[in-house]
Amino acid sequence: MTSFNKLGKQSIVFPNPVSITSFASIVGPKEKQGPLGDYFNNVLEDNYNYEKTWEITEHKMLRHSLEIALQQKGYLPSDLDYFLAGDLLNQIIASSFAARGLAVPYIGLYGACSTIVEGILLGAVLLTGSFGKKIGVGTCSHHDALERQLRFPTELGVQRPLTSQWTVTGSGSFILENTQDKSMITQGIFGKIIDMGISNAMDMGSAMAPAAAATIDQFLKDTQRTPQDIDLIVTGDLGNIGRNLCKDLLSEKGWDIADNYTDCGILIYDPSQDVHAGGSGAGCCSSVLAAYLLPQLLEGRWNNMFVVATGALLSPTSTQQGETIPCIAHGVLIEKR
Amino acid sequence: MTSFNKLGKQSIVFPNPVSITSFASIVGPKEKQGPLGDYFNNVLEDNYNYEKTWEITEHKMLRHSLEIALQQKGYLPSDLDYFLAGDLLNQIIASSFAARGLAVPYIGLYGACSTIVEGILLGAVLLTGSFGKKIGVGTCSHHDALERQLRFPTELGVQRPLTSQWTVTGSGSFILENTQDKSMITQGIFGKIIDMGISNAMDMGSAMAPAAAATIDQFLKDTQRTPQDIDLIVTGDLGNIGRNLCKDLLSEKGWDIADNYTDCGILIYDPSQDVHAGGSGAGCCSSVLAAYLLPQLLEGRWNNMFVVATGALLSPTSTQQGETIPCIAHGVLIEKR
Repeated sequence: MTSFNKLGKQSIVFPNPVSITSFASIVGPKEKQGPLGDYFNNVLEDNYNYEKTWEITEHKMLRHSLEIALQQKGYLPSDLDYFLAGDLLNQIIASSFAARGLAVPYIGLYGACSTIVEGILLGAVLLTGSFGKKIGVGTCSHHDALERQLRFPTELGVQRPLTSQWTVTGSGSFILENTQDKSMITQGIFGKIIDMGISNAMDMGSAMAPAAAATIDQFLKDTQRTPQDIDLIVTGDLGNIGRNLCKDLLSEKGWDIADNYTDCGILIYDPSQDVHAGGSGAGCCSSVLAAYLLPQLLEGRWNNMFVVATGALLSPTSTQQGETIPCIAHGVLIEKR
Repeated sequence: MTSFNKLGKQSIVFPNPVSITSFASIVGPKEKQGPLGDYFNNVLEDNYNYEKTWEITEHKMLRHSLEIALQQKGYLPSDLDYFLAGDLLNQIIASSFAARGLAVPYIGLYGACSTIVEGILLGAVLLTGSFGKKIGVGTCSHHDALERQLRFPTELGVQRPLTSQWTVTGSGSFILENTQDKSMITQGIFGKIIDMGISNAMDMGSAMAPAAAATIDQFLKDTQRTPQDIDLIVTGDLGNIGRNLCKDLLSEKGWDIADNYTDCGILIYDPSQDVHAGGSGAGCCSSVLAAYLLPQLLEGRWNNMFVVATGALLSPTSTQQGETIPCIAHGVLIEKR
């Protein structure tokens, strides 16, 4: 390989065909009741789904979304060269336990809610280097498992401020192959950490918006595009507050994204569902991408979309120690062929 | 790129030159007192090193080891195309906070103590695909920060069983470039998760040994080598108990590695230091590799070494829920040119 596959300062281009050949999603009952309810492949009976703990339910969700994605192509786990996954539980146990018994080389990732695009980009990088032919990528989150880990005991039902977001119970998995298929991964960008000094862990949207804006701005510059050259720009889980902030920040840089921009955390719930600022979690962007965005792309609603998954890289420990929130956003351009 | 860069069933080969062009380590006072004490680039004054919390000390350690590695080559952080890092703190805050302010695209990883080899392999994969020219990879761990997170309040000084290992306070960072330098990354293997049903979080060596043995066995088969074709096989942090188990497991498969096999968790401490079964932690393999193994390779003591970093992918939550421990081992072959 002699050509250099970077575009501009920070973006990358995939010179050979890399496609998302299959994808699947599974969510909890609350997500089923949302506006995208009919699009998910599968829905949990309740947040336990016959398991003893929420953590087990979460890892089985990820395993299940991967298995559906495999089955749709008639593949077995053993057909995969790698499984890249991550989640928000401490030591990403949902991903590691989902990978247990798969017997597939496993690459654990942590990018908080940005993980799905981090994984898709690394999967495309592995395929570009001819290190494999079929790669599974998936993420998940579970509202009840995460709330008690990051905030308060879930059963306590502590009142949440209006800036807070609701962790999605859901998982999305994707099969990547170096073939020419209908949805192609053509360009991408790994984000830099942006920390604007926000320390309120109940307002992740505001914390993450500058990272999303920085990644979108850099990608547009690197690829010499305007926002109007992309049919849909979609962030991972900025929610209402973060979405507006991201739009304003990009407007300051001279980019008008008002007409073709949305956010997975806004799409997944209806305002009547009392989720306050919107959805979040590592399973938010991945389940919406698998259930709604990719199918709509394939149906021709858009010809290309730039998916920017956003992550807040804090922990309860860092918050308790008074640290501000480092945030990141990774982006991938997916085109219909 | 037309050739396929997999070797056998699971291993990979890097067809273009990928070198570790610089590396650095920093450790705590206890590690300084160990047999490798004179080899580390820098040593903390104490486990706080003038910081308010152990967590801050940990992320500054990682940042510092990266900065030393950069300075040795006269590089600035802005010369890096990516920084790949991971650690054991919840939500890998040590890595994310170390990356904050670097202004380098950041790829967060979680492979527990196996993370350093996961990162080196992914860095080499990125270079092979021409997605960058200079890549930083680093990991860290901090005894006091990790003990209180994973086990008991550190100050409590709870008595530890003899099978337990001592988390290394240390960090190692590496600069990877696609140039022909003295230490070349030529082959590697991403591990599969192996879970032999061990649930004792105080005996990680026994839990991880089967994963190490599986990775070593598969790599030897894939690359059609015998253990005698490799000058040094070194595992990440199996400690005394895991080391012996790994040797026995490989012996059952017909491989005799007795003469050229050691473990970073054994190398870093002297038995008189009361660490029981040896060292562990995401900074164990990385600091020993940077301080001792790579310099010895460059001095000609070995012509090649197979570094197999091992990780136990559990969390306190999974242990409390009675789950067994999924383990993984990623391997990289480093050759002197």
